[in-house]
Amino acid sequence: MPSAAVQRIERLLRPRSVAVVGASGDTNKLAGRIVPAIRQGGFAGKLFPINPRRSEVAGLPCFPSLSAVGEQIDHCIVILPRDQVQEVVEECARLGVQGVSIFASGYAEAGEDGVRAQQQLVELSRSADLPFLGPNCMGFVNLVDGLTATTSSVIARNQEAGDLALISQSGGLAFGTIAYAVAESPMAFSYALNTGNSAGVDFGDLVEFLYADEHTRRILIVAESNAHVAQVVRRVDEIGLQKPIVLLKLGRGESGAAAARGHTGSLAGDYELVRDCAEGAGIVCVDDVADAINALQVVGSAPAREGRLGLGVVSISGGNLTLFADVLSSSELEFATLQASTVDTLRELLPGSASVTNPVDATFLGFDRPEVLGRVVETLGNDPDCKIVVVITTTAEDLRPAARAVVDAAASSPAQVAVVWNGGSYDGAAEGILTSAGIPVVRGSAAFARAAAAVQRATPRTRDTTGAAGTLVTPAGFGTAELRESDSLEFLDVNGVPVVPWRRATGDTLVAAAEEIGFPVVIKVDTAQTRISDQGGVVLDLRNAAEVEKAGAELEEKFGGDYLVARFAGGAEMFASAFQHPDFGPVLAVGTGGRLVESIKDVTYVRLPAQPQDIAAALRRTLIGKVLDEGARGMSGFDSAVGAVHALGRLALAARDVVTQIEINPFIVGDGRAVAVDASIHLKGTGPEEAL
Amino acid sequence: MPSAAVQRIERLLRPRSVAVVGASGDTNKLAGRIVPAIRQGGFAGKLFPINPRRSEVAGLPCFPSLSAVGEQIDHCIVILPRDQVQEVVEECARLGVQGVSIFASGYAEAGEDGVRAQQQLVELSRSADLPFLGPNCMGFVNLVDGLTATTSSVIARNQEAGDLALISQSGGLAFGTIAYAVAESPMAFSYALNTGNSAGVDFGDLVEFLYADEHTRRILIVAESNAHVAQVVRRVDEIGLQKPIVLLKLGRGESGAAAARGHTGSLAGDYELVRDCAEGAGIVCVDDVADAINALQVVGSAPAREGRLGLGVVSISGGNLTLFADVLSSSELEFATLQASTVDTLRELLPGSASVTNPVDATFLGFDRPEVLGRVVETLGNDPDCKIVVVITTTAEDLRPAARAVVDAAASSPAQVAVVWNGGSYDGAAEGILTSAGIPVVRGSAAFARAAAAVQRATPRTRDTTGAAGTLVTPAGFGTAELRESDSLEFLDVNGVPVVPWRRATGDTLVAAAEEIGFPVVIKVDTAQTRISDQGGVVLDLRNAAEVEKAGAELEEKFGGDYLVARFAGGAEMFASAFQHPDFGPVLAVGTGGRLVESIKDVTYVRLPAQPQDIAAALRRTLIGKVLDEGARGMSGFDSAVGAVHALGRLALAARDVVTQIEINPFIVGDGRAVAVDASIHLKGTGPEEAL
Repeated sequence: MPSAAVQRIERLLRPRSVAVVGASGDTNKLAGRIVPAIRQGGFAGKLFPINPRRSEVAGLPCFPSLSAVGEQIDHCIVILPRDQVQEVVEECARLGVQGVSIFASGYAEAGEDGVRAQQQLVELSRSADLPFLGPNCMGFVNLVDGLTATTSSVIARNQEAGDLALISQSGGLAFGTIAYAVAESPMAFSYALNTGNSAGVDFGDLVEFLYADEHTRRILIVAESNAHVAQVVRRVDEIGLQKPIVLLKLGRGESGAAAARGHTGSLAGDYELVRDCAEGAGIVCVDDVADAINALQVVGSAPAREGRLGLGVVSISGGNLTLFADVLSSSELEFATLQASTVDTLRELLPGSASVTNPVDATFLGFDRPEVLGRVVETLGNDPDCKIVVVITTTAEDLRPAARAVVDAAASSPAQVAVVWNGGSYDGAAEGILTSAGIPVVRGSAAFARAAAAVQRATPRTRDTTGAAGTLVTPAGFGTAELRESDSLEFLDVNGVPVVPWRRATGDTLVAAAEEIGFPVVIKVDTAQTRISDQGGVVLDLRNAAEVEKAGAELEEKFGGDYLVARFAGGAEMFASAFQHPDFGPVLAVGTGGRLVESIKDVTYVRLPAQPQDIAAALRRTLIGKVLDEGARGMSGFDSAVGAVHALGRLALAARDVVTQIEINPFIVGDGRAVAVDASIHLKGTGPEEAL
Repeated sequence: MPSAAVQRIERLLRPRSVAVVGASGDTNKLAGRIVPAIRQGGFAGKLFPINPRRSEVAGLPCFPSLSAVGEQIDHCIVILPRDQVQEVVEECARLGVQGVSIFASGYAEAGEDGVRAQQQLVELSRSADLPFLGPNCMGFVNLVDGLTATTSSVIARNQEAGDLALISQSGGLAFGTIAYAVAESPMAFSYALNTGNSAGVDFGDLVEFLYADEHTRRILIVAESNAHVAQVVRRVDEIGLQKPIVLLKLGRGESGAAAARGHTGSLAGDYELVRDCAEGAGIVCVDDVADAINALQVVGSAPAREGRLGLGVVSISGGNLTLFADVLSSSELEFATLQASTVDTLRELLPGSASVTNPVDATFLGFDRPEVLGRVVETLGNDPDCKIVVVITTTAEDLRPAARAVVDAAASSPAQVAVVWNGGSYDGAAEGILTSAGIPVVRGSAAFARAAAAVQRATPRTRDTTGAAGTLVTPAGFGTAELRESDSLEFLDVNGVPVVPWRRATGDTLVAAAEEIGFPVVIKVDTAQTRISDQGGVVLDLRNAAEVEKAGAELEEKFGGDYLVARFAGGAEMFASAFQHPDFGPVLAVGTGGRLVESIKDVTYVRLPAQPQDIAAALRRTLIGKVLDEGARGMSGFDSAVGAVHALGRLALAARDVVTQIEINPFIVGDGRAVAVDASIHLKGTGPEEAL
């Protein structure tokens, strides 16, 4: 029994009857081209043009209204100006229509008036359980059933069903650029949807439907808004990554975000966060259409790969191998480390002058002995560290025998086999032999490396949530007033986040507090005020009682009141923050800390709850993490840094009813220890609005 | 009158008669395919197969030896095993042959024995003024004269002469991958050379010949060794960048370097340095073949562009514009800032609903009104900040009218016009209309951005060498013994490099020295020994006489002797080094300094002499440079940092007879000042071997 989500989307996308409201006889207009497009596509169901001013459209009888049809209408395509849409959708709801496509623009992408109009549609859709595509969309194609409910010269030429489903907020990309790129690739669409403003359908529901659809083996999502990416990420959390998903996120940079706002009214956000959250769910994130096509070929139908994709590489061109190695060295990919037995077998297969290390330079072999090439591929593909075997072509009069050998070898090796097409033969037959056997053929080493690296980066974070949240300890009076410096440190301290040794003090007890902690110390005016250091309220690196006394006297004169005394520690500076993201929920940010945190922008994100290995993986992607992990110049404490951030994550989840954000800058990491030195905590209702 | 270099290469590449020594009748062998390949290519000169065991090869009379030909032989192709080559080349020298191609491998790429054999060839070539391609090469094609002295199935199909000259150390790339990519592009070769081990010809001479050649408009170089890149860079220094040069450097990373050593026996080096030196000569550096082809299209025949390439962009697809903006935001490229008059004109041209900011969203225009599209392109192209107008296509039934409009607009705009082909029509006619008018057509936004960014990065450094070297001041006794800390600081100080305030002192005079300088101070044992700080020989941040006295007593007990006292300064840490590179000569390195300099690897290189603006441009490409330039968190002193590094460069050139390397880590930059704090100077004969 399909889930409610699957049934809802099935009704939307697989109708047995379609009405086109606003169908025109003028084929120069969009409204005049939909009915012919559907007919040309060979849709086997019923098709009803609706237009009170016409009796016939494209050779079909035309009805004055939906109700005049007098038969069940499953899907209604509305091609009317915005102001006439709501009424038609209301009629759809009354008549039991199961899904709607709304082409009109002028909604949320066009200002306040449009936002209201879109909200009306959403409310109607919810109350009537009537999903819709759009508004501001260009329709959809369901090639499984031969329904091409859009106009596109490239779709019109490529109506064979394939295994790739596309969900795109952009119509120009869906039915122009991507459709063109797919047509030039070995792939074809099962479904391609332009959801436009994407107000009437949950992307999670779409993904769940595509999981259930037997024709679809891989999914490409083009999303402009974080909210729609988050719908997918959450659904993957719930039901797993059952088929590979590739994401092209639009509106990434500042300028991109501005353009996206103009485009479909979605507010684009911080791309790095979105990418890290998606990749942490196993979704492959790419930067442009070409990379998307290549990544879709490389993922094939394997939903998730764990860890490092070791590459085994063979070519008959040394120059191409050098270039491939160059490209690899500036990516995160690595050559597989071959077992001795693999190398022995290669040595038997190849002449003495060939290089039998990885990459394998088979120059002297040529493509004249395809059976040897095949055995090299098979040998590499059976090495346990080798996850993808890459064959790099060069130009040849006839590559078909080599292609057949590669196909056969792929069938008898556990590794995936891929071809980097760095020049080939002209007939196209060799390429066809490869692609029809499901072997990815990617043009160029750099393009392959970008795609494979994107696939490698998509590693689902641990789904083990045991011990995710700690038990919250609330210091007396905590949260009843604004937090002072010392309240924040104490809150971390009692909840298991390692902090620098510290004491509260007054002017009189400063020296005693410092001596208890041990020199050197820092004294801070203990206040809820931010930027107290800019006013001279912080004195660093005091080495003895005399210095503390002198500094204390000066502070008393200027500020009076209470102080925080803490050990002055040296080491590497790490930043960590736990906060509530409006779309992705509780998220940890970690990276290089200190004064220049905004300039350096060295940060990675991981959704909470996160296990230590997830945090370690995120931290290793940052500069500070690499330095700590390598122990460069005596910098030690990677594991402690991970432990400290993990404790922060547990606390953040435990405290979600009390606190909206905890930012620590810096954690000082050195001598194998990581301690929080400065913390900024937002109490619920006083800081960012979302609770953790 | 052509230069000697041009004449030498003209004799090598444009022979009127060619002999093939080792020509075979077996067309399964390379030696049997060259003569037919030359005949098929339509070479109009004389062709002499040489083989004592045959009387006829491929329908031509075959001679037993070169001397048996009895006519002038201009070029001799030698396809014999290595051990027979030297004798033949000696005969070539005797007979007045003008150039040789040596196909045999087993030379420098194959070990010591081969290195010696190659050296013999080089000596012969020099003494006889007889240039050669190879050894270990696959020949060359000169399509200007119809001479295809190589076997390649792709060359055999594409023998029309074009304007692209290729010099490649790799044969597989030259006659396989790149030839294939060029055949699929709008370009064609004038010349394509595989120089293999590249022992018998200077790349500078080749470039000078191609400058003089009227058919060649752009040059692609594929080089594995730094030395060959340096030959080009030096020649460009001497005679200018007369035609655009694109460089694909092989053997870039660690693994790449290893593969390159196996391949042609060249020692590959530090790619970042090579790239910075080449880009500083105006050479466009790319990372793979696809990027090379695109960059060659974008450079066209314009040798050098100065500064920022502002982009004006127009599309009818909002999604594609968003994607383009995304891609741009992660590159160094920027949208042009349009003048108000440009925006006014666009507003007149486009309907009210269109976006008339840059990028221009002409969604409502469609490609149905090509004359409006043309006027938009022309308007953007006449804006002074707009250096390239980019038209992004989407799929259409017929793009020819739009293509014609773009071609016409390009003709009447000072900016370059380029097309990002993000989907098109199927006939190919529109693409042909664009490319035959010289308009670059690049597939995909990311590919375009990579190519245009590479073109933008290639900005020749200032060639003004006024005041390049200072006048050297040599402190008494300098260079007669190993340098102590204080000798190095003094050497910088008296030669105009700003240094931290400092004094020499003994145990007795430490306090007085510190008081003269002003607290806080640092005390160092003044020794030539490195890593004295690891032994406790450095005490930081002493704030008063008592602290100096205490620290001094402890140092006296442990070390005794002489000390250096210097001001303890805080600020950003910058690294700078001037050194002699074996291929590129004197070079400055600048970047983020401090303890983690090796981990952070944030460094750019600029050849000396360099003017302040060159150093500023290099520094801005580093993290520390960005931070200082933006004045983030009060970090100031960008100009002082540039001045300090400039002074270091002047000193390095002035001191080249005395000193081989000066490394300063760190320069402390803060409060608008930059001062050297720690310096390491290598005297000639004691450190790295090359003199500055």
